[in-house]
Amino acid sequence: MFEIVETGSKVRKSEYQQQLPEIRTQLLQVQAELRAANVPVIIIVSGVEGAGKGALVSRLNEWMDTRGIETHAFWNESDEERERPYFWRFWRQLPPRGGMGVFFGSWYTRIIVDRVFDRLDSRQLENRVRQVEEMERMLSDDGALILKFWMHLTVADQQKVFHKDKLDGVHANSMRKRFADHYDEFQRVSAQVIRQTDSGQCPWRMVEAADRRYRELTVARAIIEAARTRLNLQSATVVQAARAVATPISDAGRISVLERVDLTSNLDAESYKKKLKKYQTRLHDLAWEAFHQKRSMVALFEGWDAAGKGSAIRRVTTAVDARLYRVIPFAAPTDEEKAHHYLWRFWRQIPRAGYISLYDRSWYGRVLVERVEGFAHPTAWNQAYQEINDFESQLQEHGIVVVKFWLHIDADEQLRRFQEREQTPWKQYKITAEDYRNREKWRDYDLAVNEMVARTSTGVAPWTLVPGNCKKYARVEILKTLCKNLSAALEP
Amino acid sequence: MFEIVETGSKVRKSEYQQQLPEIRTQLLQVQAELRAANVPVIIIVSGVEGAGKGALVSRLNEWMDTRGIETHAFWNESDEERERPYFWRFWRQLPPRGGMGVFFGSWYTRIIVDRVFDRLDSRQLENRVRQVEEMERMLSDDGALILKFWMHLTVADQQKVFHKDKLDGVHANSMRKRFADHYDEFQRVSAQVIRQTDSGQCPWRMVEAADRRYRELTVARAIIEAARTRLNLQSATVVQAARAVATPISDAGRISVLERVDLTSNLDAESYKKKLKKYQTRLHDLAWEAFHQKRSMVALFEGWDAAGKGSAIRRVTTAVDARLYRVIPFAAPTDEEKAHHYLWRFWRQIPRAGYISLYDRSWYGRVLVERVEGFAHPTAWNQAYQEINDFESQLQEHGIVVVKFWLHIDADEQLRRFQEREQTPWKQYKITAEDYRNREKWRDYDLAVNEMVARTSTGVAPWTLVPGNCKKYARVEILKTLCKNLSAALEP
Repeated sequence: MFEIVETGSKVRKSEYQQQLPEIRTQLLQVQAELRAANVPVIIIVSGVEGAGKGALVSRLNEWMDTRGIETHAFWNESDEERERPYFWRFWRQLPPRGGMGVFFGSWYTRIIVDRVFDRLDSRQLENRVRQVEEMERMLSDDGALILKFWMHLTVADQQKVFHKDKLDGVHANSMRKRFADHYDEFQRVSAQVIRQTDSGQCPWRMVEAADRRYRELTVARAIIEAARTRLNLQSATVVQAARAVATPISDAGRISVLERVDLTSNLDAESYKKKLKKYQTRLHDLAWEAFHQKRSMVALFEGWDAAGKGSAIRRVTTAVDARLYRVIPFAAPTDEEKAHHYLWRFWRQIPRAGYISLYDRSWYGRVLVERVEGFAHPTAWNQAYQEINDFESQLQEHGIVVVKFWLHIDADEQLRRFQEREQTPWKQYKITAEDYRNREKWRDYDLAVNEMVARTSTGVAPWTLVPGNCKKYARVEILKTLCKNLSAALEP
Repeated sequence: MFEIVETGSKVRKSEYQQQLPEIRTQLLQVQAELRAANVPVIIIVSGVEGAGKGALVSRLNEWMDTRGIETHAFWNESDEERERPYFWRFWRQLPPRGGMGVFFGSWYTRIIVDRVFDRLDSRQLENRVRQVEEMERMLSDDGALILKFWMHLTVADQQKVFHKDKLDGVHANSMRKRFADHYDEFQRVSAQVIRQTDSGQCPWRMVEAADRRYRELTVARAIIEAARTRLNLQSATVVQAARAVATPISDAGRISVLERVDLTSNLDAESYKKKLKKYQTRLHDLAWEAFHQKRSMVALFEGWDAAGKGSAIRRVTTAVDARLYRVIPFAAPTDEEKAHHYLWRFWRQIPRAGYISLYDRSWYGRVLVERVEGFAHPTAWNQAYQEINDFESQLQEHGIVVVKFWLHIDADEQLRRFQEREQTPWKQYKITAEDYRNREKWRDYDLAVNEMVARTSTGVAPWTLVPGNCKKYARVEILKTLCKNLSAALEP
């Protein structure tokens, strides 16, 4: 595969200097236009050791308007990064809409290195490659322009670079020799990964890297060209609207999963008191044990208004040591959050190893309120099912326990609770005209919940539908489920 | 000092239940009002082991509207935290304006513990205490309401708690015994720290903690009362305007430090080439050595428009391995940044140990453009000198090398460069009518620079005024200064 860029291409100094003014001017122009069009741009610079990737990154920084470009080198992981799923470190550095991120090293680097040095087997590699594809597809769908450059050197050219650097006294990093010794394996694994991730949306661009001037002009031209193509596309059609809307998984006539929830379930005060104490004590100890075993848990609470999410969460938090959990309430996204993919703000909050995050509403807002109220385009919320499944399976793969609750009550019970809230001084703030308006959309929400459960109740992260008409029953059920899931994940 | 809260206060269950509705209603009310008034609230929960701090934190979460309150426990530091100055971990969790942060553990915890276990000597403790005072004063000046609770238990009550927990099978953390064994020393050090940080702006509130109901009501009432006082104050007077404006350190008639910069300094092309190569190679190696020794450097570039900041930074970045530095350009603050103290966005960007951050403009914007253009109130920019000095001395104390450049050119040279930019296609984007308008304020900026240098050129972080009429001279001067400062900080 790499032969196609082993042609000995070179650019003479005079030619380079002649072309430079035009290239730099155009680069700045497309950068300004991409910013104006609110396109986030990710430029991935990968390739073999010695191919001048660092110098290229510096050059891009030199040519671009520094206000709006950020470079991120992914190589020296912190424990905060290691304690979270592989993609967390990239999510935290994604450029906002209108911004440009140069990724020196990227999601490709470690998977290739780990495969060469046998820290990943071929099945694990396949899995990572699939995740990379999903990541890139998801960001592209969200409007990102992703440019992937592979800087190639023949083994002979690589040796020349290493030799020259030695003469110049350039400080080589300790990995260099190990890379050189495994040139062939790197080529083999890289070729495989490149082939599999060379999608129509995010194609790879191979660059012959032996000649500095040639590689610089080639990359600059590719950026200009890709930007122009993208900007033309954007002005010709609204990208979102052009996509097909997926067919709902269920048809409206079917019985909703919620109808099968037994709302007569209940618990008397006596048993409640006993069971509450039992499971709270249990959860307290399990949380400490999970901390020591470095196991995290993510529990999210969705449900009808007034279904008792908040009070259920409080039964959890009074059980667990305050050092070990965080409650993350649903809130309007900040502008930094709005300037990223909608999952960005949830990735931001993924707990470190050993901690528990409790989400009061969650990323499912996309397929619930945003769907029903029309805040998200149908294409966007239809894509969200898959994106959410991928997200949760990444959490689970990293050893994080994912527990999802839908608190179910019926419309009569909801009305009763609304009225009760209005009569309790410290609960009045919870109830507004908005809440009554939402009741009129009960049927739409029912459909949305039904489809959400159908599409996202996966083996790794199933939904637990909790009968909530009896609050006591619901609270105990939730505590019990948390205990069960957490203890199943712990070493005995 | 603690005797005052050893009175055996208790609240009966009936009394507690009778008062609760009113207390909860008021808490929610003041929370809503503080949010509407855009006041950031920090509630610090400190005190002796076993005093029910965690339970209190859970209770506050239960009573407040969860949307807008966040709890942060500071205890299990990550390497990303350890690699940065002590206060970084608190800065990253500060609540935004209108938000409420409950700090379980805080900047007090570690300094008390470290002093008791002799990891800090008394001089170091004094220094930390002074930094705490500065931090609180700075946040208060910026509008924050800081509530500090000290939960007190007598040694007898502490033993009772420990004993009861044991019977209940409560999992005690490993520190508990160590704390109990050092009860007296903890009391002594805590008393000292409390006394020294018990300021008018941020007073301590002592709470007798033996009785759960008593401590909960006491804290709740204190929050309500402090909030009311603050809200009344805010509506009575505009807080900012009430403060006195400091006297400028220099009088307008004096000779500016900038006049003493020798703008005739220059370098011919031949020497430039030689010296550039020499210092770039040197800096390249020093940056790697600094990485291995885990020494960071923060270099900031201020100067007149067109003084050559960008091109000087590029001479640095082409020298240093792209994995080791980040350029942080001046940009408009995001809304998350605007919702915090103005230094927050700079704290956000402090490099991990071993890395270099290059700031293209910096926190000095407060005392330069914001002062001259009137974007900041005189009180605010007058306070900034001290805040900046504290900030930089914290960086320096943590072993971070701080280098500050002012690139100086004269008005004629600036005009020449503006005109040149207009004629160079890829430089045109840099020049706007705004730049010409700024020239008219040359004298105001000159005064501001003069005062900035006078007030912030400290022993730990002096200003380097770089003659910039000859770009070659300036670039070499900058590289040389960076090499000198970095190498001075490294072990031989």
